[in-house]
Amino acid sequence: MPTPPASQPAFVLVEPQMGENIGAAARAMWNFGLDRMRLVAPRDGWPNPKAVAMASGAGRLLDAAQVFETTAEAVGEADFVLATTARPRGLTKPVYSPEAAMAEIAARIRDGQKAAVLFGPERAGLENSDIALANGIISVPVNPDFPSLNLAQCVLLTGYEWRRATSEVTPRTVEMAGTEWANQAEIDALSRHYEERMEEAGFFFPDHKAETMKRNLRNLWSRMPLTRSDVQTFHGMLRQIVRWKDRGG
Amino acid sequence: MPTPPASQPAFVLVEPQMGENIGAAARAMWNFGLDRMRLVAPRDGWPNPKAVAMASGAGRLLDAAQVFETTAEAVGEADFVLATTARPRGLTKPVYSPEAAMAEIAARIRDGQKAAVLFGPERAGLENSDIALANGIISVPVNPDFPSLNLAQCVLLTGYEWRRATSEVTPRTVEMAGTEWANQAEIDALSRHYEERMEEAGFFFPDHKAETMKRNLRNLWSRMPLTRSDVQTFHGMLRQIVRWKDRGG
Repeated sequence: MPTPPASQPAFVLVEPQMGENIGAAARAMWNFGLDRMRLVAPRDGWPNPKAVAMASGAGRLLDAAQVFETTAEAVGEADFVLATTARPRGLTKPVYSPEAAMAEIAARIRDGQKAAVLFGPERAGLENSDIALANGIISVPVNPDFPSLNLAQCVLLTGYEWRRATSEVTPRTVEMAGTEWANQAEIDALSRHYEERMEEAGFFFPDHKAETMKRNLRNLWSRMPLTRSDVQTFHGMLRQIVRWKDRGG
Repeated sequence: MPTPPASQPAFVLVEPQMGENIGAAARAMWNFGLDRMRLVAPRDGWPNPKAVAMASGAGRLLDAAQVFETTAEAVGEADFVLATTARPRGLTKPVYSPEAAMAEIAARIRDGQKAAVLFGPERAGLENSDIALANGIISVPVNPDFPSLNLAQCVLLTGYEWRRATSEVTPRTVEMAGTEWANQAEIDALSRHYEERMEEAGFFFPDHKAETMKRNLRNLWSRMPLTRSDVQTFHGMLRQIVRWKDRGG
């Protein structure tokens, strides 16, 4: 059976140290639907039981992870490689925000290319020799006074941007799914109900302010984003309080 | 010295359990320049040495963290509150992507408002009673097969979007210039006023539905874009109708 075309980038962990961090990175990838992990010379060998313990629920990624001796081998088949690094490194490379990086990778993958993202070892970060293999750098806009993202966090943010770049339904705007909004007639009826009862109750006082008060009240109802159910609640409260009045408290 | 205007949202951890997670959340906040942490009833008390050990480098946030008994107190002064939650909860609330959420909060803060973001306890997530206090929900677009973000990861992604929303100044059209919006404490007071009177009037009936009805009503008030003047109108109507009742119609 032929290999299906790469529909996502490989995430390459270069010389990761603690197994726990590899497991946490696997979880972070799978949180955003990514499952192609590659490892370059993991310090404590492979497989690593501590990675498995931490990965719970995303252990499949570890089983399927490919292990390489060098970064060059790990990215050998890729058409486009980006390196995550917090610090500028004195190498001339295009610098991408995570968002721009994943948009670029998504576009290239749609064009049939293969892509990989490099993540450095926990403390040291990527060596210049690894960064030199990349077409560009991903720089996360962290607080310059505290740029201490760990490996799994860096994977998480990159995976999040991958998902944003590729999910068909990106809710950029506010939605309120399944909500039945009240229509204008229903809002009008509600407004009249309150106006009538408030008139009876003597709310619109003094007389010379009554018209302005009524207009403001109508305006208030019409400005509110009321659902059908909200409208029923407001009717219900008013009816109940009138019943309370009628039975003398 | 007068308090400087809020230039960032407060991040409110509701009933956090392990100290390590509070420390990790502090680090995640400070990675993106956020330093206003609030805690609601931390399980293991406060201060917590495990939180301090984990927060290394961001310990200042823990020293400055404000601790509250209830979520309502923690968000009392906020004009706009969003709740992070993975699951739809059967409450009618606007749903924001992290990006849309932080853009909205950034815009409101530029307009002089105060904002807060709620994060639930590690396992259980936020209770509906907490979510009812929020104006909307933040939903992270995770893999539906593996939606297992932990507390610090959720804080990290939200903080990241805050940084993205604020690192470039995007102009926003000011709507309803000069409007004084009601703050959360004023909305709460209004909500309580209606709840108390409606209780007296026998609105919350039958008994087994009373709690749901109350929660829905609180949720209704918190969803409405009420001005100070609107709040006064609603108080005024209710007071007047009670007077009407008291004088026997």
